[in-house]
Amino acid sequence: MNENTPSAEDRPFWYWEDFRDGEVHEFGATAVKADDIVRYASQFDPQPFHVDAAAAERSVFGGLVASGWHTAALAMRMMCDAYLLRSSSMGSPGVEQLKWLRPVRPGDTLRVRMTVIESRELKSKPGVGLVKSRHEVLNQHGEVVMQVDAFGMFGRRP
Amino acid sequence: MNENTPSAEDRPFWYWEDFRDGEVHEFGATAVKADDIVRYASQFDPQPFHVDAAAAERSVFGGLVASGWHTAALAMRMMCDAYLLRSSSMGSPGVEQLKWLRPVRPGDTLRVRMTVIESRELKSKPGVGLVKSRHEVLNQHGEVVMQVDAFGMFGRRP
Repeated sequence: MNENTPSAEDRPFWYWEDFRDGEVHEFGATAVKADDIVRYASQFDPQPFHVDAAAAERSVFGGLVASGWHTAALAMRMMCDAYLLRSSSMGSPGVEQLKWLRPVRPGDTLRVRMTVIESRELKSKPGVGLVKSRHEVLNQHGEVVMQVDAFGMFGRRP
Repeated sequence: MNENTPSAEDRPFWYWEDFRDGEVHEFGATAVKADDIVRYASQFDPQPFHVDAAAAERSVFGGLVASGWHTAALAMRMMCDAYLLRSSSMGSPGVEQLKWLRPVRPGDTLRVRMTVIESRELKSKPGVGLVKSRHEVLNQHGEVVMQVDAFGMFGRRP
């Protein structure tokens, strides 16, 4: 899942069995524009440092920054495009330790580094497995701006 | 912060000192429509059970459900309207234990129950305090659909 990855149609379909502990995948390249930051935040998180460039200048951030929930949403979209839309995904029971480590600013380009932490069968749901994976969102400088350990449920290979 | 709460302009401004351990506040009333679910998910989480009613019928959810990140975003907006926009909010370092407990479906109306878990001064940042609070998102049946323990940084009262 890097820039040499074949087009989506050629990619394999991911079942629970295809997530192997310790495997690392990098994917995505999402450019973040000021307009995107303001549009998202105007709807969901209209704090001044997310929607008002002048107020953001005077804030602790020193300029416009993306809502942390926007960064999470952009990471989710990169996960969808990289593998979730061609997988047996059955949703997620939740995430652990979502950390916003650095501001995301206009002009940043984000990508995701995913590390499979643990996968196990779900005794309560036959045919379904749980995958825990760490998703680090990196900017163009290689800095981790967000880190989240997420659980995903996936159907087992038929 | 209930239905008898005065208009936003009359509400007090929240500093770090105004979050008291154990206090519970309920706020918000957000109606979730199918169009909203599909619009959000088309941009950020286009899994079939979030964007395609027919595919969602055949999925494990039995019908269209909101992206969990959409539910989180709606909760964030309710937090903004209830107190964050009139507070000394300085952003959040992250959240713990975000659980998606029940599906959010078209026609649901969501609200938030916030419980202050712990507040403490930040030794590394003079004048700033950290507040940890549990946010439960409830539907119109009183069922908790999402629960998240979130950290917020707030300026201290001058």
